[in-house]
Amino acid sequence: MSIEEKLKSLGLELPPIPKAIASYIPANRSGNLVFTSGQLPTKEGKLLFTGRTGGEVSLDEAKEAMKQSCLNALAAIKGVIGDLDKITKVVKVGAFVSSDNSFYEQHLVANAASDLLMELFEDLGRHARFAIGVNALPLNACVELELTVEVK
Amino acid sequence: MSIEEKLKSLGLELPPIPKAIASYIPANRSGNLVFTSGQLPTKEGKLLFTGRTGGEVSLDEAKEAMKQSCLNALAAIKGVIGDLDKITKVVKVGAFVSSDNSFYEQHLVANAASDLLMELFEDLGRHARFAIGVNALPLNACVELELTVEVK
Amino acid sequence: MSIEEKLKSLGLELPPIPKAIASYIPANRSGNLVFTSGQLPTKEGKLLFTGRTGGEVSLDEAKEAMKQSCLNALAAIKGVIGDLDKITKVVKVGAFVSSDNSFYEQHLVANAASDLLMELFEDLGRHARFAIGVNALPLNACVELELTVEVK
Repeated sequence: MSIEEKLKSLGLELPPIPKAIASYIPANRSGNLVFTSGQLPTKEGKLLFTGRTGGEVSLDEAKEAMKQSCLNALAAIKGVIGDLDKITKVVKVGAFVSSDNSFYEQHLVANAASDLLMELFEDLGRHARFAIGVNALPLNACVELELTVEVK
Repeated sequence: MSIEEKLKSLGLELPPIPKAIASYIPANRSGNLVFTSGQLPTKEGKLLFTGRTGGEVSLDEAKEAMKQSCLNALAAIKGVIGDLDKITKVVKVGAFVSSDNSFYEQHLVANAASDLLMELFEDLGRHARFAIGVNALPLNACVELELTVEVK
Repeated sequence: MSIEEKLKSLGLELPPIPKAIASYIPANRSGNLVFTSGQLPTKEGKLLFTGRTGGEVSLDEAKEAMKQSCLNALAAIKGVIGDLDKITKVVKVGAFVSSDNSFYEQHLVANAASDLLMELFEDLGRHARFAIGVNALPLNACVELELTVEVK
């Protein structure tokens, strides 16, 4: 199965390539690495949830948002390489979670992206990752994700 | 026009190579990539603005600061490669914006750096980027920027 | 002296390879670069300190924690390359410091990692670095560190 077929078998669909909300591009290649921009959890042009996780946004909502950011990152990569099956390795995930001062489960939020990548790419999906809390994200998004992959 | 000539034509000047304020170096090369350290908006030895954007620091001030951080990052890269015209591609910008809890326009602040890079490097200036808010930066700087470029 | 012998001569010991607390791996290689995951200051299975620096956690405690995160990052790299003497260059440090709103010395906290890397790797230890404050980290850890190195 191709990666896009796997996405479909999981009931997921690759979104259109995300438009940058500012003067930059969704993803950029240098050598064999593709770096995505920080992806907000936008779906059909709207942010899934706004506010801080542990505050207005629940853990489950933040996880759903992080999964969407990850789909948007994959779409951004597809925009650069044309076909997600050219990915030879997921290298690194950076997960930013807008967090209430008393919320300390950023790693659980990030798992929503990590688990999806493992499901799609299996052994090639194993990645390094950081997950941190922040007090504010663009447009009051609850999460933002950046993804680095190796491609052929 | 060389990149430094373009800077001059924009009324800007490349600052002296920034000194690290701690035990690290302003920029570092590995293979064809040069990674800068996080650059504070220092100009002639002083921080342009301190405090949180959306609080003590206005959006316009934060943008001015981000532009200065970007100039400092270019100076840091020059310190490693000697000549900014050896840059073959701007790869990635990381923009950290010290933010009031109610400020959600980190992307607009980051645009000050992105726009400058596009103006200087044109098509080679298109880059991936993340922009996030944080509650505190070193020395109470209002912004910090890291830059990754590809060089020959 | 090998890097591990140097660690011992500094009275330090390389911890066991850190286990990921979620669905990712401690470090990942792409080409000649090894990227670690964000390392918490875990020692013998327990976090050294929890809370915000400048609040519940003192500057000295945060520095001790950052040093431990750096040791954990080196252990993570050893897990990928087998021998720390295969490191040809420390490329970049990312230092996240859980910070009270009035704490602005993230660079001093990060120095604990930078100084250790310089001591161990000498000229090859010179690195680019960002240091930022954040309002919350996973498990309420006071610091998190990511490390990128070049290997042969």
